Amino acid sequence: MNAFDYQNGEMFVDSLAVSEIAKSVGTPFYIYSQSEICNCFNAFEKAAKKRLKDFLICFAIKSNANPAILKLLASMGAGADVVSKEELLLALKSGIAANKIVFSGVGKTEEELALAVEHDIRQVNIESEEEAATLNEIAVSKGKKIKAAIRINPDVDAHTHQKITTGKKENKFGINWEKALNLYQIFSKSNGLDLSGIDLHIGSQLLELTPFEQAFKRTSELIRLLKEHSIKIQTIDVGGGLGVVYNEKDAPVDPDTYMQIVHDAFADFDGSIIFEPGRFLLASGGALIARTVRIKKADEKNFLVLDAGMNDLIRPAMYDAYHEILSVKAGVCDQTYDIVGPICESSDIFGKDRRLPLMDEGDLVIVKTAGAYGFSMASNYNCRPLCAEVLVHKNRYALIRRRQTLENMLFLTREPEWL
Amino acid sequence: MNAFDYQNGEMFVDSLAVSEIAKSVGTPFYIYSQSEICNCFNAFEKAAKKRLKDFLICFAIKSNANPAILKLLASMGAGADVVSKEELLLALKSGIAANKIVFSGVGKTEEELALAVEHDIRQVNIESEEEAATLNEIAVSKGKKIKAAIRINPDVDAHTHQKITTGKKENKFGINWEKALNLYQIFSKSNGLDLSGIDLHIGSQLLELTPFEQAFKRTSELIRLLKEHSIKIQTIDVGGGLGVVYNEKDAPVDPDTYMQIVHDAFADFDGSIIFEPGRFLLASGGALIARTVRIKKADEKNFLVLDAGMNDLIRPAMYDAYHEILSVKAGVCDQTYDIVGPICESSDIFGKDRRLPLMDEGDLVIVKTAGAYGFSMASNYNCRPLCAEVLVHKNRYALIRRRQTLENMLFLTREPEWL
Repeated sequence: MNAFDYQNGEMFVDSLAVSEIAKSVGTPFYIYSQSEICNCFNAFEKAAKKRLKDFLICFAIKSNANPAILKLLASMGAGADVVSKEELLLALKSGIAANKIVFSGVGKTEEELALAVEHDIRQVNIESEEEAATLNEIAVSKGKKIKAAIRINPDVDAHTHQKITTGKKENKFGINWEKALNLYQIFSKSNGLDLSGIDLHIGSQLLELTPFEQAFKRTSELIRLLKEHSIKIQTIDVGGGLGVVYNEKDAPVDPDTYMQIVHDAFADFDGSIIFEPGRFLLASGGALIARTVRIKKADEKNFLVLDAGMNDLIRPAMYDAYHEILSVKAGVCDQTYDIVGPICESSDIFGKDRRLPLMDEGDLVIVKTAGAYGFSMASNYNCRPLCAEVLVHKNRYALIRRRQTLENMLFLTREPEWL
Repeated sequence: MNAFDYQNGEMFVDSLAVSEIAKSVGTPFYIYSQSEICNCFNAFEKAAKKRLKDFLICFAIKSNANPAILKLLASMGAGADVVSKEELLLALKSGIAANKIVFSGVGKTEEELALAVEHDIRQVNIESEEEAATLNEIAVSKGKKIKAAIRINPDVDAHTHQKITTGKKENKFGINWEKALNLYQIFSKSNGLDLSGIDLHIGSQLLELTPFEQAFKRTSELIRLLKEHSIKIQTIDVGGGLGVVYNEKDAPVDPDTYMQIVHDAFADFDGSIIFEPGRFLLASGGALIARTVRIKKADEKNFLVLDAGMNDLIRPAMYDAYHEILSVKAGVCDQTYDIVGPICESSDIFGKDRRLPLMDEGDLVIVKTAGAYGFSMASNYNCRPLCAEVLVHKNRYALIRRRQTLENMLFLTREPEWL
């Protein structure tokens, strides 16, 4: 059964009516289903276990950084893929062991690299020769050897939105073939780097598996080449990127098929495989709940104006992303609305020409598949407070983030004291 | 003299070296020049004064909501254009009188409308018949009469980025001609609304004035039509939209020419004109200062990786916006870089193929014309803290927003207490 579904004519999350939670929490808010998150993690882990001897699932914290979510994933054995000092500290704070944390990102500062070394994290994914040199120096100065991988750029088109394609050679990410070999040769002899990893990430929200196949094949070729140069790779970080179904028209990707591809590409590899899923674990387990502020009847169309805006969920405005939007009260979908937010920009639109039941002011809607890159990208644009977050477990729920107030929002501002 | 310019080989803001402020505040941070903001306000006001008898400049708070900035503008006599309850309360808190505040936006809640009525603000800009009815009811229930305007949709193409075009008939904003006349007829007899205003806003960042001319002409025709129906308009809110020069190739718009257009379009009008500039007052007076984390040499291009990202300034990623980027240390611009942020998305790029002097790690850059829609759209994406804001006045500076910490960021999160 779907964790977000109608029961007795009303949208439920697990065993709780969304409308009841909205009454107590107010709107808008993000709601997460613990069971759905666990199901996604278990499906991914099961598929991996069936085919791989040694692997680690590092949740990409950038997709959802609520500590309660991180603790839940940690309790299931997840590691973390972090991209900033704050994410690294948050992962540790949430009970994720340092040896399960990988640090990615093209702009790690010296402070961030030093923190990674101090905590002896599982792996630093190096994005450039310059970073390799800096990391080596820092490790040497601390008398440590840090596990590291070179992020290679396989020059593969992931066929996803251009803003989240990351594996083409014109992107800022990764290092090309010839240069990578050279770096391995230089830094595998260094005192500060244990350069036994290789890393790649070709993009996000991939719904076809061919780009993965191509990228893994190239990686596997590079691993063979490295072996010929007596450099032994012990960890392959295959990145994330597995897509989820936002639109019912999309065909879901099967983690089993994905794992088969991983297995086949690296059949003669006996080390450890690291995965960095974010969206795949969290997207379907979260939704944004909003209330209808106004029904605006215009010339040719009716607008359903919500109390949630692009500041709460920026994906439609930013990536032209599609999210399924349903009425919380079930009904025959015989009306058409443009579903928009209250923000003063034309891009603040959640869905065009959507079919819904006849809606009234005050009626609730659910914007589905919003658990990943939803709250994590929220802003205070238009001075709108960050919304609340709620976690549901069977027939109970917990507020895992309070709604922001104007006072909270102004907390860091100061009267000028002229220096 | 430009408020942001080189002096003795170094970028200064007014009489202070950017590098000195960076040393004390850390990076990244937004920096504002009080003199430049005052100059922009004065230029706008002077142009209006020359041609109009009765006008009010309502600063669009959504472009920059720092209380110190708002207080500065309030001290010069500015009113406010607000689009949320929080912006309304912030405007009042910052010393802007209620009779200088207009409330815009397509999704005002009942709570927000009630607040506007309670404070007797200058004008509520009504976006739909449904909103008119609700506002009237609220005012009647409180025994008040609230000044209101109908926001008309002139169906004019503003020739700006589609995400910030707001005056075409397929946009969610405004009310069409025939319907507007009808609404004025109904609600000018109501007990709760003093419907003596008319409002329009066709978009943001307009660098040609023809769309304004067209829209004002249509508005003026509607005012005449209303007069024929014995409805007297006393306030015209012409919105904002005046563009600024982001790229040196752009021709600046002259507030004088703009005011002449306003004057000519409404030559036979003897009421009050409201302006809602945001970008025009604040954009050029603010900049983002960032430090080079890494120079990444790739195949065909070099990447300058900054410690600021799209979470700090989303305009390039969101609107393909151009910002001029200069080295804080002056030099011959004989190098080419793609200037990018540290965020794990290909859209996190501030500028492609930019000419700069030879840069080194640690070197500072200034991203210019970032005072509007810069900090106000910032987020915590990648768990990156909201950056600091600094105001400069001649040879002194003041921290007007402290840099966020991880602790601040987590303040509203909670351990689950299951209900």
